[in-house]
Amino acid sequence: MTSNQSAPDLGSFFSPRNVAIVGASEDPIRIGGRPLEYMLRYKFSGQVYPVHLKHQQIQGVRAYSTLSAIPADVELAIIAVSVALAEAVIQEGIAKGIKAFIVFGSGYAELNEAGREAQHRLARLCNAAGVLLLGPNTIGCADSHSRLIASFSTAMDTSSLKQGRFSLVTQSGALGSYWMAMLDRQGLGFSKFIATGNEAGIDLAQCISYLAEDNSTDVIGVYIEGIKNVGSFRVAALKAAAAGKPIIAIKAGRSAVGAQAAASHTGSLAGEDANYQAFFEQFGIVRVRSLSEMIDTAKLIVKQPPPAGRRVGIVTISGGAGVLLADELEARGLGTPDFSEPTKKKLAAVLPSFIHPGNPLDHTAAVAGDPGLFDNVIKIVGHSDDHDSYIVFSGLLESIASKLVASLKEAFALSSKQIGVVWLGASPYVIKELEEAGIPVFADIPQAADAFRNIALSVERQTQLASLFEREWPATQSSELSKTNLPGRDTRSLSEHIAAQRVKSMCDITFPRQHLVTSVVESASVARLVGGFNFPLVAKLQSVAMPHRSDQGGVLLNLRSVQETQKAVEKLFELARTLDIEWDGVLIQEMHSISYELIVGIKKDELFGPLLVIGRGGIDVELRPDVQSAGLPLTESEIKSLLLKLESAPLFSGHRGRPVIDLDAMVRSLYQLTTACLSDKKLIELEINPLAITDDGRVIALDALATEHQT
Amino acid sequence: MTSNQSAPDLGSFFSPRNVAIVGASEDPIRIGGRPLEYMLRYKFSGQVYPVHLKHQQIQGVRAYSTLSAIPADVELAIIAVSVALAEAVIQEGIAKGIKAFIVFGSGYAELNEAGREAQHRLARLCNAAGVLLLGPNTIGCADSHSRLIASFSTAMDTSSLKQGRFSLVTQSGALGSYWMAMLDRQGLGFSKFIATGNEAGIDLAQCISYLAEDNSTDVIGVYIEGIKNVGSFRVAALKAAAAGKPIIAIKAGRSAVGAQAAASHTGSLAGEDANYQAFFEQFGIVRVRSLSEMIDTAKLIVKQPPPAGRRVGIVTISGGAGVLLADELEARGLGTPDFSEPTKKKLAAVLPSFIHPGNPLDHTAAVAGDPGLFDNVIKIVGHSDDHDSYIVFSGLLESIASKLVASLKEAFALSSKQIGVVWLGASPYVIKELEEAGIPVFADIPQAADAFRNIALSVERQTQLASLFEREWPATQSSELSKTNLPGRDTRSLSEHIAAQRVKSMCDITFPRQHLVTSVVESASVARLVGGFNFPLVAKLQSVAMPHRSDQGGVLLNLRSVQETQKAVEKLFELARTLDIEWDGVLIQEMHSISYELIVGIKKDELFGPLLVIGRGGIDVELRPDVQSAGLPLTESEIKSLLLKLESAPLFSGHRGRPVIDLDAMVRSLYQLTTACLSDKKLIELEINPLAITDDGRVIALDALATEHQT
Repeated sequence: MTSNQSAPDLGSFFSPRNVAIVGASEDPIRIGGRPLEYMLRYKFSGQVYPVHLKHQQIQGVRAYSTLSAIPADVELAIIAVSVALAEAVIQEGIAKGIKAFIVFGSGYAELNEAGREAQHRLARLCNAAGVLLLGPNTIGCADSHSRLIASFSTAMDTSSLKQGRFSLVTQSGALGSYWMAMLDRQGLGFSKFIATGNEAGIDLAQCISYLAEDNSTDVIGVYIEGIKNVGSFRVAALKAAAAGKPIIAIKAGRSAVGAQAAASHTGSLAGEDANYQAFFEQFGIVRVRSLSEMIDTAKLIVKQPPPAGRRVGIVTISGGAGVLLADELEARGLGTPDFSEPTKKKLAAVLPSFIHPGNPLDHTAAVAGDPGLFDNVIKIVGHSDDHDSYIVFSGLLESIASKLVASLKEAFALSSKQIGVVWLGASPYVIKELEEAGIPVFADIPQAADAFRNIALSVERQTQLASLFEREWPATQSSELSKTNLPGRDTRSLSEHIAAQRVKSMCDITFPRQHLVTSVVESASVARLVGGFNFPLVAKLQSVAMPHRSDQGGVLLNLRSVQETQKAVEKLFELARTLDIEWDGVLIQEMHSISYELIVGIKKDELFGPLLVIGRGGIDVELRPDVQSAGLPLTESEIKSLLLKLESAPLFSGHRGRPVIDLDAMVRSLYQLTTACLSDKKLIELEINPLAITDDGRVIALDALATEHQT
Repeated sequence: MTSNQSAPDLGSFFSPRNVAIVGASEDPIRIGGRPLEYMLRYKFSGQVYPVHLKHQQIQGVRAYSTLSAIPADVELAIIAVSVALAEAVIQEGIAKGIKAFIVFGSGYAELNEAGREAQHRLARLCNAAGVLLLGPNTIGCADSHSRLIASFSTAMDTSSLKQGRFSLVTQSGALGSYWMAMLDRQGLGFSKFIATGNEAGIDLAQCISYLAEDNSTDVIGVYIEGIKNVGSFRVAALKAAAAGKPIIAIKAGRSAVGAQAAASHTGSLAGEDANYQAFFEQFGIVRVRSLSEMIDTAKLIVKQPPPAGRRVGIVTISGGAGVLLADELEARGLGTPDFSEPTKKKLAAVLPSFIHPGNPLDHTAAVAGDPGLFDNVIKIVGHSDDHDSYIVFSGLLESIASKLVASLKEAFALSSKQIGVVWLGASPYVIKELEEAGIPVFADIPQAADAFRNIALSVERQTQLASLFEREWPATQSSELSKTNLPGRDTRSLSEHIAAQRVKSMCDITFPRQHLVTSVVESASVARLVGGFNFPLVAKLQSVAMPHRSDQGGVLLNLRSVQETQKAVEKLFELARTLDIEWDGVLIQEMHSISYELIVGIKKDELFGPLLVIGRGGIDVELRPDVQSAGLPLTESEIKSLLLKLESAPLFSGHRGRPVIDLDAMVRSLYQLTTACLSDKKLIELEINPLAITDDGRVIALDALATEHQT
């Protein structure tokens, strides 16, 4: 990680000594009145200074006519005034030495051009003065520890401001408010909440970086409309990974319709969802589909140690529910292996003979008559090392619920394993008791399985990333590439033979023997040119003016002799003349017997910078795409992992009579290629399609495409 | 539907005039005490007769020493006595003229062999007497209208016995109890509940058939461990489809681990999950993963008309939530098309200028200051014909909640469309008000999307099935086939050339020109045999003793001349001698240039009877299987639909340069084949692999396999 990626200290937004509210209102329903009312109600630990031109008191608190009039150094100012007034207020605040500003008001870049300019002026002002700006168009932030509520979110109306270790950064104020309200309903508590609004100043990534180092945050929720700076987001994600703090993200716009709706709804550059997905996977971020899933996932880790792996043990009162749990866990890639023999022996010693000591362990309704049975089982299972986490399924059992709860709490206190409960028809008492003890209770089986999967994935990905955080990460390089090498008007496509030369100069990927013929030649010349080539050959017209070359008759296959080849060359020259297009010549190439095809692309995305895209090739692939991508640079082992994530990966090791390929050699070539592409400032896009695997297991590039800047 | 499939009248289990409880207990916690306590508490509409050897009163109700002693005709008897006593009690009941029995006790087939025999005796007894038996090992049944609670489910402890139009049939008593409790928590109410236990008498299918005709049931939930009689289940599903009553099923054992756990947990024959899945799809049953999803789905239809299609309109207070909704709906195959121009005009007339009248319609936080805005929008959208259903997203808004609720209720009352609400952070008041008006409120966005998808699917599938109910369905035929033609020891595999002959005699599927050579022959003879064949040829050793013929060198490809062919024949004869196996000869066949491959199989499943299985072929197919199956018989149009459900279906119409095939001709051939297979009593299994599509679009069977009974 490069040092210029360090995040600003956002402490002033969460635990300032004091806070001024400019535009404070007597009316506790107005946006200038809410934060004051909340901070009075919840007893903010610092001082609050309402600022109002006329009144000497607001909501019973001594008010000041201007920021300058406040007889103390002010750390944070909430600006709840109109667009027209905000700039002057911030100027005054800067002059007074205030270090952080929150601008509530709307009417900025989200509204119109005048608003955009006003927003730019605020940003420039704060930037020049070296002060922090949150917003504009934000509902603000809150901290359950300092009890600062610099927010007008109506979620605070009914909040208990319960302390917890779960924090949220959100680009949607509304979604953030629902999060607050839902956490509160569940009694889970939160640590910090921050809505970034229009992000004229601090952005999502800076907030995540700060929370990654925040001692009172263990889990970071993120609601994303669009990432503005991928480089700093990546650094933030790596920081969180190094700290072992899961990042649980919601990103809208997964579907085509959703993406379009998102584009019309938000000002941010949405980018292709597939690139977001690849980014999340690469940088250890777990993507969820809803706030409920985010909260379920956080519940499982916020008071528990992370699981060491994917093995889940199941203890159930209903055989059917045990099967449903196994189904849902297995469908999500978690394992439900059986108990070890020693554990089975221990279980058999306490179980009645009609209960089988296997996973899922169904202790049956017998437990209703003998709650001690559950106590014995849960302690044996909880102490075994057979699984990394366990799920307990129960239902109803009102009459013995308190005993089961006590057993669960005791087992949990003594166990180092992750534990979650599904208790259908549970009373509020049961849920409250268990969750306060740190044992989450899920609404149903799929919800539990989602949370367990998400946490297991997060731990795995973040563990892999921990080393990346230590190494020098060339974030600026990729960021620079993404800025300088954008596709634009001054670009040109390269013919296949030139693109092939380019690829050959970059790495040791093999091409077939080939030769460019630039004029009509006699058979004798052809014979000389293809001397040493193995027939059959293929002849391909070289022209950037033929995007669908094969369909237009520009490729002639299966040339079995010098004569056929010579005729093919003539035919293609004739075709070029008929079509009246610019052309470079005809490429004559050996044909190979192909087992299957891959596609390799290096693309420089406007938002995500340079990406490596690898997929299965062939004409059927769009029926069921099999593609993986990741941001560059990548190490050899990361490229290998990417290849092995393809559904087609078993082919590489010779699945069903396919040739076994030298995967490490292919990985090495791709590594060379990506490295060379990164340092090629002119290159915009490069594709090898197909990268063919021949029947005898050689890896050969049969065609290449490239686009580069002309200058 | 054949007449012998009619379901028994189960009315005695739900609304009997009176009920006797044999083994009634004074203790309201015991299984013989609970039903009495419940029926007294909830005021069962009929008479209850406790039967107890000693006491004259049980729980304050006049008791009788035996069933015979009851001074009235008894309609239903609950048997809550031990296995040892049950048979005699039922004998006595039959003698008294009782028509229906529920046997609570466990210790039957689920326990051991003695229990299994006891169960068989009960079944034979009831069968011979023509009386109905529910159980044994069941928690019984209940009816919210008659207020009969012939159940010891603890879910009744806290039930309100609220009436509703949702009924459940369950093979797990525990899951059934959770269902009851969860419905009650949500205030949804139920109509009928029945747990079938060990199904010695009435089974799942009979219960569904009854509910399909029950006037107080609109939606049928089913929890399945294993179907015993597929034929009658199919009839039940068709009946429900004809009545337009969705069947929402949970079937455990989807994963391999789950299936194994299910097998150890339940006595029923589980069958392969893929066959269940195909069965559900074919017979209009919607499969869900959890009780929550089942209840969410039922909520959407129980007080609402079915949607006419898949188009969903979205009205939201948060742009982000609108995008998330579109994402989740689109991911489930529902559409979110834009509003029509007339609707847009109407919307534009009531919306402020900064709100875009598109779908999703984000009326923004502006609604907080102007609840009339929402009222206008929801009425315009609700009355348009642009969509088949709509989802309203809201969050918090406590201060104007009652106005929004009133608008929703009014719009709902006037609209003929399906409507659901996601209201994050809603107060219990909001949820109660809306749900009582018939507008379901979902926990979050994915839950709503699941319910909308499930109902849309159910309506589509059941509409397609309505015609099947009218036509003569040869259920007995398939049932007979499934019983008589099971794989067993007296079976034999047929060599390719014999299987090919069999297929040719059944339908007009084309095979390549081919000839069987049964002894070593001269080149001249080979030349005569393959006269008129087009080279290249392939030679294949014909032996049922070589399951992996290709891997063992039993197939020689690309024979380009008579000489090569003759040598290949010799080589294969030599191979057969070396391996010392039985063989029929060498099949010489024309080779074809193949574009892609299909696999067609007809299998007679022990549980599901004859099935048609169609899939993509080729060696990579197991990496990403693309398979569809359905129970036979199928019409031509059903076979075509099955083919078009393949992910590879676009190939048939010439995707990416593939040849266009005569799909109707292929469908006709397959129809002939399935019809012939159904009437071939000897045949057990038949597979054409590959059914190749040549480069010029012909459909040719390159290899066939068959297994049949020897006698």
